[in-house]
Parts: sequence; structure tokens; C-alpha cells
Amino acid sequence: MNNKKTISGFSKLSKRGKIKWIVENFFKNPESVMRELASYWHSNEDQQKILDGFSENTISNFPMPYGVAPNFVINEKTYCVPMVIEESSVVAAASAAAKFWMSRGGFTTEILGMTKLGHVHFVWQGDIEILQSRFDDIKKKLLADTEDITKNMQARGGGIQDIILKKTSDEIPGSYQLLASFETCDSMGANFINSCLEQFAKSFKQFMLTDSAIPDKDRDVEIIMSILSNYTPECLVKAFVSCPVDELGNFPNGMSAQGFAKRFKDAIDIAIHDPYRAVTHNKGIFNGIDAVVLATGNDFRAIESCGHAYASRSGSYSSLSACSIKDGQFYFELIIPLSVGTVGGLTRLHPMAKRSLELLENPSAEELMQIIAATGLAQNFAAVRSLITTGIQQGHMKMHLQNILIQLKATEEESKRVISHFDDKVVSYSGVNQYLAEIRGLTVNS
Amino acid sequence: MNNKKTISGFSKLSKRGKIKWIVENFFKNPESVMRELASYWHSNEDQQKILDGFSENTISNFPMPYGVAPNFVINEKTYCVPMVIEESSVVAAASAAAKFWMSRGGFTTEILGMTKLGHVHFVWQGDIEILQSRFDDIKKKLLADTEDITKNMQARGGGIQDIILKKTSDEIPGSYQLLASFETCDSMGANFINSCLEQFAKSFKQFMLTDSAIPDKDRDVEIIMSILSNYTPECLVKAFVSCPVDELGNFPNGMSAQGFAKRFKDAIDIAIHDPYRAVTHNKGIFNGIDAVVLATGNDFRAIESCGHAYASRSGSYSSLSACSIKDGQFYFELIIPLSVGTVGGLTRLHPMAKRSLELLENPSAEELMQIIAATGLAQNFAAVRSLITTGIQQGHMKMHLQNILIQLKATEEESKRVISHFDDKVVSYSGVNQYLAEIRGLTVNS
Repeated sequence: MNNKKTISGFSKLSKRGKIKWIVENFFKNPESVMRELASYWHSNEDQQKILDGFSENTISNFPMPYGVAPNFVINEKTYCVPMVIEESSVVAAASAAAKFWMSRGGFTTEILGMTKLGHVHFVWQGDIEILQSRFDDIKKKLLADTEDITKNMQARGGGIQDIILKKTSDEIPGSYQLLASFETCDSMGANFINSCLEQFAKSFKQFMLTDSAIPDKDRDVEIIMSILSNYTPECLVKAFVSCPVDELGNFPNGMSAQGFAKRFKDAIDIAIHDPYRAVTHNKGIFNGIDAVVLATGNDFRAIESCGHAYASRSGSYSSLSACSIKDGQFYFELIIPLSVGTVGGLTRLHPMAKRSLELLENPSAEELMQIIAATGLAQNFAAVRSLITTGIQQGHMKMHLQNILIQLKATEEESKRVISHFDDKVVSYSGVNQYLAEIRGLTVNS
Repeated sequence: MNNKKTISGFSKLSKRGKIKWIVENFFKNPESVMRELASYWHSNEDQQKILDGFSENTISNFPMPYGVAPNFVINEKTYCVPMVIEESSVVAAASAAAKFWMSRGGFTTEILGMTKLGHVHFVWQGDIEILQSRFDDIKKKLLADTEDITKNMQARGGGIQDIILKKTSDEIPGSYQLLASFETCDSMGANFINSCLEQFAKSFKQFMLTDSAIPDKDRDVEIIMSILSNYTPECLVKAFVSCPVDELGNFPNGMSAQGFAKRFKDAIDIAIHDPYRAVTHNKGIFNGIDAVVLATGNDFRAIESCGHAYASRSGSYSSLSACSIKDGQFYFELIIPLSVGTVGGLTRLHPMAKRSLELLENPSAEELMQIIAATGLAQNFAAVRSLITTGIQQGHMKMHLQNILIQLKATEEESKRVISHFDDKVVSYSGVNQYLAEIRGLTVNS
């Protein structure tokens, strides 16, 4: 083990101290790396301090492209949707789908539920019927002891909805949970829910120590953990688009509207029945969803975990979207659980997230769920449309090549020659670099 | 519908033109928003042009905190792991777990497979036995027709591994797929695979039109789509940590090493058996994984889709990690499919991704998979350790409060008073803002 690569007390170093240690021990050109890291800092030091505070051991910013998809008509209101994503063609696809549906009635969305969940997991070897018989009083105590925590949320119309006692798994002897449901209004609610749950755990232990109905030998409850569930199948939103098949328009290579609708439905049905296809299909949906989640300072890992578990709820991983054609009407929908906030967390702390919410005219959490679902559906529509008509490589390779040409500072004349050369070849950075070098009369070590 | 909020030809506008339209139509204070968007641009115009090129309709950068977790010992090599994540406590947790295991043998990892997959989905109503009897020749033609595409990949040791014919689903009459497997070496391989598949589709159609064994009435094959699968259960990596239970050390509130090990295993077992817990549990794993995926310019949506589908492969969504205690030895492992690249895509185009790979000493894709898996396992260890000992709210709220205090430019004296006031209360931005205003003798409209 190279001792110069381990360190004690790293987090205590100043930001410059951290950078110095990193560049000196891991880079060949410490000074230029140090300059490059600093070049991504915000010019305003206070502003940068805010960004640094979001995480730990921060030495720079990783810039993600911030784009917008205009012309999103959702429930007859028009949005310009902010999207943060590093993958090319996602924003273009969402914009194209938004415009396509703008003249065909737009997106219609609906909130199907707003319930969030959390658990206190515990192990207890006593007679569960005794616990059940005392559960009304336990619940009363848990609600009373969290009044300080829930007061503000209740004033906003939310709070604890219910608490039940549930066996966690027959496989783990004595494992139970206090399963609590919550309404957290415009916040995602993680801090609120976790604070309630940790108090539940304390109060529950206390109850068990003192309640007269509990046998002395069973007074000890082992709390394993108290934590919200990111699985929120009842915090659910639906988005759909629909129009007469005849009005779908014409498609490349002479494909008719009827032919398109039929093949589109086939593609969706394949994603419903084949998990290997469903994963890629849903990944496309999340391309749109995560871009808005990121732009508004929400947590995409929570959204992803929940959405994919929901996609597997039947026992086989499946498509989150569905398509039908009935009486000449094309219908395409997405139903997805989305637990997001428009207050709390980073939503107002991250300066660009705050601007994203302003761009969306400061939506409620329910409205943001609907915007996100519509963007996911738009993304899915655009991706499947490409796949079943022209294929995706043509567009992808063109954009990838453009990126490489910018990177290699190709002149207009050089770019023309490269584009023509790679017309029938797979684009790669090393390939383009090599060919450009040939054009330029150089040799490169690739 | 407010017509000022829809636009035609937006993507054709210059960057300044786009920004102008957005700020004038969606913001109350157009000029200050325009200045703020510009304040996140890189000071070097060429550099910013590269960032803008990654996506479409880009108007600014969304800065994500770029941090590092030092002291990761993986297979006896020491890494300082770059992490891009907006959630507080993730980098701190990974760093703490890395240091904990550094003195207990570090992380051990192993590649279990590197196979990637892709499909040409088609619908065909002919006699499948005829197709099967001709499949050797079909395969020969597909391989021959993609030689131009596969040449470079073969030189690097990769290429097409196999192509088989498979029924997609009995639910969709006539639905089949050409299922191809690939080795894509150090690239994630999406462009390579999709280019091969689109050529397969063309060549397959051609074969069916001309081969003498195919009845004339069955010559038409409808290609639905040709696309890689992001589900790669055979592109798999394992990471584990292990040490004698006695050497786990001591934990808060007098918890012994034995008590800790037992409760840790209970917590993992709950995540194995309860999908509601598994979602949150795996979300924690992805906190670590996605942070490295992002930092190295890989695609976190692909990684998430694949990993969660893998978590549901038994028919019930479950934990990706597992724990055992046997003969006094604590063992904790993560097995996860991870399809990532260290060449191609954004890995070398994004300037900070390139630096991340340098910081990791330019790993191969296999090495990067192992680093990412170890980071995911570290994250999971740290999260579960917190949950079963002190709970997570104490740390979370402390950090969240710090962020809010920085944002509200609280002085040291004010911060002390706020921290003491919120010691037993739920921290919220509006609550802190309100209390700070009281301290400062102001009233706020919250």
C-alpha cells in the first residue's frame, strides 16, 4: 500500500488543503489541475460557499448542462420545463414531443394519491395479541409525543395519517413494524417523517417499559431502525396523451398514422412483457423524469428506486407506460409514484433549483409531480417514435460527432471532411482524433 | 392558453436569444435572472461551448458539488474516489466507511461477467421452424455485414459474442427477437451495440427477401425496433468486506461488537424480505454508486434501471446487499450489474469526468466497476450503521441547519442561538428564517 495515498484528518483540512493533497498525490500536473478545479468555482465566494455546503469534502463543481423544453401544455397550462441532464438528445426529444402534443390537446395529468410511508422496525418475542390489544393506546401516545414535530405540518394541512402494527416477515422471528402513513404537503417530507419515526421509537420503548398489560419478561423491545420508506406506491400520478389515430400525422419512410399507431403499441407491449426491453424503456422515461427532478433540487435516487420497484410490483419487471388503440383513438399513459417537494431540502437552497421552480411559476408538489410525469411520458413517446421509425443511431451519432469536433477544435472545413468520412462508420473519439490528425498531416498516439 | 408562453423555432435561437425569451416570459426580474444564469457559465468561452454541446437548449450550468472520499482500499490498492452528489452526508458516510474498513482488510471485489446485450425486435407470422433451420446462415450474414463496425472493437479484444433467435412473448403473436451478446471492453458500448443492431435489422430483412428457403408469403418481416438492453445481469461485479466480529470495535450507547453485528444482520435481512424497506436500502447503495457514475461521466439512469430490475429478479423486490455471521466472522457483500465505460460517451469529453478518471489513475471499465461497487457497499454499510445505532436524524438535521444558516448569512453568534433553539425541533427553512428574524428584531413574510 502506498502510504502517500491514505490520509488521516482529511475532512478537517481547508478546501485548499484538500485540493493540495489530492493534486500532489494523484495527478502528474498538480498546478494545472488545481487551476482547472478552481475554474469551475462560482465567481462569487459566498455563492460557492453555499454550493460547497451541500456535500462534504467538496473541491469543485461538476457542471451539468441546464437546458429547457418549451411548449409543454399540461392540463391546458403552458410550461417551459427546466431539464438538467448530461445525455445528448434528451432535451431535444422532450421538446419535440411537447410540440407534437401541443397541437393535439396536450398532456392531461391527475394526482392519484399523496400518501407517504415510514417504518419503525423492531424485534420483539412476546405475545403479539397483547400488543395488538394495547395498540390504540400506543398510537395515542405516539401521536401525543410527536405533537411538537407535527404542529407546523398540521397547520399546512398535513401530518400523520395513521399508524398500524404489522408483521415484517415470517422469515425473521419476532420482526414487526410500526407502519405510519403521512401527508407532507409541498415538502418531500423525509426530515419530517424521520423525525416523527425516531420519536415513535422512543415513545414505543417507553410505553413497553411502563404499561401494566405488558408482562415483565417482554418489556424489552429491540428497535432495529426508524426510517421513511422511499417506496410510495400511493404517492402516485397519471399522465396521458390521446388523439384520433388519423391526426397522428405522417412519419418517415412513408409510414402512415395507422401503421405508426400499430407499431407504437407493439413496441409498448413488448416492453410490458419483456423485462429486458422494459428496463431500457423505463430508463428512457427516467431520462425525462430525472432531468426535471435534478433541475428542481429533488432526489433522483429516491425517485428511481421507487419507480423501478413499482415497475416490478406484478412479480415481473414491466413497462411503466401503456398504450391502447380503441375506436380509432390513440391513447398513451404513464402511471408512476413520484415523491417530490417544492419546499424543503435543496429546492430553495440550490440557487439554480430555485430558479427552476420560478420558471415553472412556483408549483405545488402536486403540480410538480404532474409536470414531471408529463415530461417522462413525452420522453418515452419521443424515444419510441425514433426507435420504430428512423432508429436512434442516426441522430445520436450526429450529435456525438459534433461534440467530439468541438472538443478537438475542428475548423469548419475539417468538420465537413470528418462528417463525410464518418457517414458510414461508428463514431469514436479516438477514431475522429486519428482521422483529424491524418487530415492535419500529424500522427497521434491514441 | 397564454400565447406568449409557447414558441416556434426555439432551438434555432442563439443561446442569448433563448435566455431572453425565457426570462422575459417566465420571470418577474428578467435582467437579474439573466445575470444569474450567466454567472454559472465557465469563464472560458470554448470550455462553456463544450459543456453546452452535451445537451440541447442549454442556457446555463447546474453546479453539482464535486467531492472526494479518500482512503478507499480496494483489492489492496488505495483510491481517492470522486463523488458528485447534491445530498448531504453521502460523501461523509462513504469516507467514514472507507476509513473503517481500511484497517480491517479493505474491500475485496471481483468481476463476475462483462457481457452486454441487445435486441432486434420483430414481428413475423411465418413458420418459426423454417427460420430456425436457416439461422446459422442468417447469423453468418449478420456477422459479415457488421465487420466494418466491429473491426476496431475486435482489435481491442471485444465484439459480438453470439446471436440467437428467441420468442419475445407468447402474449404478442409473432413477436421474436434477435438477441445478441457483446463484449465492449472499456466502453459502455451503447453506440457500438446500437450500430450493430441497426445493421442486423437491415441485413436480416434483406436475407428474408432473398433466401430460397423462405416462402414468398413470409418474406416480409416487420422490424419493430433495434436497441441495446440496459438490463445486463451478466455484466456483474461483487464487492465484500469481512472481519472477525470481535474486531468491529465499539459503537455508540455502549453497543458491543457482537450486538452491532447481530443488529446489522437483522437490518439487512429486513431489507431482503420487505420490499418497502428494500427500496430505501437500495436507494442508499445508489447514493454511493450514482455519485461515482456521475463523476466519471457515465449514465446513472442506465445503472439505476438495471440495478433495480436486478433487485426484483426473484419476483419480489429485494436488497442488493447481504450479510452473514459465521464462526465469529462478519461478512457483508454487494452483487450488482454495472455497465460503465472509461472511454467513449462523456467519459473523456466532460472535463471534470476526465479529471475523475485521472484521480482514479485511469482505470479500465472492469476496475471502475469494482470501485463503484465498493463505494456502493461502503455507503450501505455507513447508512445501516447510523440507522441501527444513533439514527440518522441527528446528523442530517445538523447539516441541513448549517446549510440554511449559510444561506441566510447568519453570524457566528446568531448561528449559536439558532442551533440551540432548534436542538429539539424539526429544522425547516421557513422556521429558521422566522426565528432568525425574531433574533434580528425583524418580521418576515414567510
